[in-house]
Amino acid sequence: MDVSAPVVAHALVAQPLTRAAFAEFGDVIEAEGLDALAINGGKTARFDDLARIETLGEGARPVLSLFHTQPYALPLLAHELERHPCGSQAFVPLDGQAFLVVVAPPGDQPRADAVRAFWTDGRQGVNYRAGVWHHSLLVLDRPSRFVVVDRAGPGPNCDVAALDRPVSITLPR
Amino acid sequence: MDVSAPVVAHALVAQPLTRAAFAEFGDVIEAEGLDALAINGGKTARFDDLARIETLGEGARPVLSLFHTQPYALPLLAHELERHPCGSQAFVPLDGQAFLVVVAPPGDQPRADAVRAFWTDGRQGVNYRAGVWHHSLLVLDRPSRFVVVDRAGPGPNCDVAALDRPVSITLPR
Repeated sequence: MDVSAPVVAHALVAQPLTRAAFAEFGDVIEAEGLDALAINGGKTARFDDLARIETLGEGARPVLSLFHTQPYALPLLAHELERHPCGSQAFVPLDGQAFLVVVAPPGDQPRADAVRAFWTDGRQGVNYRAGVWHHSLLVLDRPSRFVVVDRAGPGPNCDVAALDRPVSITLPR
Repeated sequence: MDVSAPVVAHALVAQPLTRAAFAEFGDVIEAEGLDALAINGGKTARFDDLARIETLGEGARPVLSLFHTQPYALPLLAHELERHPCGSQAFVPLDGQAFLVVVAPPGDQPRADAVRAFWTDGRQGVNYRAGVWHHSLLVLDRPSRFVVVDRAGPGPNCDVAALDRPVSITLPR
């Protein structure tokens, strides 16, 4: 084995984010294609219960936070992913900005060839199911704000793992 | 008593929404004035745990929903308020739009002279504490989207009560 051989990144083109494609990783938070409940005397359409909020473990609770995040540049090279074994994590963009969603199925170690990348439409949010490997927030071009619903509680709830090789991610043309 | 006397509305000018002024009704969801946790290798500022999420009662759980709401016109006349005795309700605007927050303290019946009105800055969200009387969503000028975190569960969780007299609400000049 030639240990000096260069590591070749696994190349991935982000797909448009859809409920069907994302189902194994969590929820797409969007009104698109859903029936609404009419409330407030008809003034408001409620698209109900769009994310399975998981807060596992004694003494855990859901928390709502704001994230202000700085942009990445393309081409993006992902070296590691994280997961929250005891809780889901929902992100909804507040500045109408698309973002990259990079995930891998639950399991001991994320593998580069199992990584999937999705590109949101600027209105969509996502909710990662507990244990799903995901990259940290990936916005491009400019800073962005998100509302986040995840878990607080006792015990560790964040694992970070290196990918077996880097994943390079580009946007669809 | 002359029952034909016209009902005079209680006139209220909305105040700018601040944490201090809103403290008895719930939380202001904003980063302003808060220290952030630096996460994601310094790329993201996390403003943590900004709303007390309450889901009271056996079998209750938090739910995340999207509301699409139609605008009201000024001058606004509020006739009734609602409350959710078993859960908080958080609203964060997704279209950068200011909205009116009209509330009254918990209690059997909301009184017009106890009503308070606040005008958000377009980035602020609010979280109504369980039992706080509030008007339904009040946006002006154009439709707006909100992310909402409230409660699902067995049993009734929405009371609606008429005010003893209407409250007319205007914006500060």
